[in-house]
Amino acid sequence: MTQTNRQIVLKARPKGSVGPEHFESREVPLSPIGEGEALVRTLYLSIDPTIRGWMERDTYLPAIEIGAPIRSAGAGVVVESKSDDLKPGDRVFTLLGWQEYSVQKAGPQIMTIPDGVALEDALSVFGLTGLTAYFGLLDVGQPREGETVVVSGAAGATGSVVGQIAKLKGCHVVGIAGSEAKCAWLRSVGFDEVINYKTEDVAARLRETCPKKIDVYFDNVGGPILDAALMRLGRGGRVVLCGGISQYDVPDEKKYGPRAYLNLIAVRGRMQGFLVMDYASRYMQAIMELAGWVAEGKIQHRTDVVEGLERAPEALMKLFSGANEGKVLVRVSE
Amino acid sequence: MTQTNRQIVLKARPKGSVGPEHFESREVPLSPIGEGEALVRTLYLSIDPTIRGWMERDTYLPAIEIGAPIRSAGAGVVVESKSDDLKPGDRVFTLLGWQEYSVQKAGPQIMTIPDGVALEDALSVFGLTGLTAYFGLLDVGQPREGETVVVSGAAGATGSVVGQIAKLKGCHVVGIAGSEAKCAWLRSVGFDEVINYKTEDVAARLRETCPKKIDVYFDNVGGPILDAALMRLGRGGRVVLCGGISQYDVPDEKKYGPRAYLNLIAVRGRMQGFLVMDYASRYMQAIMELAGWVAEGKIQHRTDVVEGLERAPEALMKLFSGANEGKVLVRVSE
Repeated sequence: MTQTNRQIVLKARPKGSVGPEHFESREVPLSPIGEGEALVRTLYLSIDPTIRGWMERDTYLPAIEIGAPIRSAGAGVVVESKSDDLKPGDRVFTLLGWQEYSVQKAGPQIMTIPDGVALEDALSVFGLTGLTAYFGLLDVGQPREGETVVVSGAAGATGSVVGQIAKLKGCHVVGIAGSEAKCAWLRSVGFDEVINYKTEDVAARLRETCPKKIDVYFDNVGGPILDAALMRLGRGGRVVLCGGISQYDVPDEKKYGPRAYLNLIAVRGRMQGFLVMDYASRYMQAIMELAGWVAEGKIQHRTDVVEGLERAPEALMKLFSGANEGKVLVRVSE
Repeated sequence: MTQTNRQIVLKARPKGSVGPEHFESREVPLSPIGEGEALVRTLYLSIDPTIRGWMERDTYLPAIEIGAPIRSAGAGVVVESKSDDLKPGDRVFTLLGWQEYSVQKAGPQIMTIPDGVALEDALSVFGLTGLTAYFGLLDVGQPREGETVVVSGAAGATGSVVGQIAKLKGCHVVGIAGSEAKCAWLRSVGFDEVINYKTEDVAARLRETCPKKIDVYFDNVGGPILDAALMRLGRGGRVVLCGGISQYDVPDEKKYGPRAYLNLIAVRGRMQGFLVMDYASRYMQAIMELAGWVAEGKIQHRTDVVEGLERAPEALMKLFSGANEGKVLVRVSE
């Protein structure tokens, strides 16, 4: 077997836009595994906006250290094992990092992917992305039948699932996305209305498409779109804070806070953040429900696969330019 | 009896700072009352930050019309009546407006002030101010014993009651205010820690005074102080949005949105607005509890009385400069 491990490590912390200068590729020797450990070969990396935050500072997890592989979830296969719980050939999901190989231990932080589940699905609709949509919408947003749900970043991996679950729950669903192609796809998967924020006046279109105002706004983007949604929020409205991708690449002193937040007083609304990891005890139930919807064709999803570990930085930057269509994955090996 | 009614009416809508140019004083003839109506002479006006919003735009109530008396709660006395439910001599609390006299009808929107309750108390600690503190802290903030509660605008009519109720509930209480005199008073009524935002680094002092982070932040001010509190919020923290007095006088395009709002994701926190009027069915219970605490000396409060209807605009402006100490009232007549 190979004696080296290629990694993409953190070279410098981004303060503004993330770019190639923040990464470095290197080869390191592969250390032997110890008792209870397994060597995992990376198959796919899950490219998520939250990685940007880990690169810059301590958040809900400590910042990635300079010189360490970029922290990242992914799917891999066990190639060598001294653990009774991880067998060669097992496909697993955990934090693999941007590298060809990693040493893992059995435990609650590593999940085995059942046979018959495609890896691309395991990393998207049945992975943290789909679970984020599921718990964020249903537990934090609490939509009721007949209510109006608006989602930004709607063509993204999380947003598209949010909108489709909201449709399944009988809601009027409006998606906000950044291209005609994305909007057309959202219409094709059942969104009632779509807004192209690059060519349309979001505030005006929210007035048109949400005649009964907004009950749940699921936010993936922040910035002026969040303000437009806050201004159209209805009484008792809920803003689900999932992310703010428009702001991650902006230096602190230039970040855009939601100026319309005081409208939460007038409408008696709330804005609430969540992290999917808090729902770990309910993942299995949610995955089964999601799997049923996917099997029935009620949830469509797309993956945007970038080939090769060396292109992981480019894959991450895609999220911030909005060039991706669906869940971004990097295929590291077959 | 008098045939004229002096009023302070809205002359122009403020976009930035509210000033004398937005008001006009005028005398109008007093129209006779009809069946079911009563003539009420204004005794005190309650000067509240929310009036600023009503002057500019539609919020949870329609904007005040140009030429109409400034909308304002107040206490008055019935001087003439053709209603069975409002008797001459009754002291009442309702929306009186900035005027010497108003015509009122019986109904749930007008409350009789029981004998033995001082008018100044009825308009502050037992009025909407005290009730706002009570429901905002207890229902929206939901503090638990041993938790850390931070309140801004702490020396104000609402903030000071919030902090004292939080102490009664066994919390560690930190107040933020804008002068040494205010801070000294807050210490004297039992706040554990005080921060003078005009002379101290609020973020640094929150780190010192909230070693276990913040569980409930009751915000009356907005702006950079809200950001500092968001950055110090603990896991599951609640931000109670009561007001944002630092922002009311700022034109829309210059308003300061909380740039640190994304920290709500990392800490799984929420920011929630409320209006006291939604709790009307529970006012009596709350007033009784507040009255008990005041009688036992557990809640101290102060009123800042400005003499004369003509000085109502000045009284309102005091709220925005922070010159007031406690609840601002205007005494219109004896």
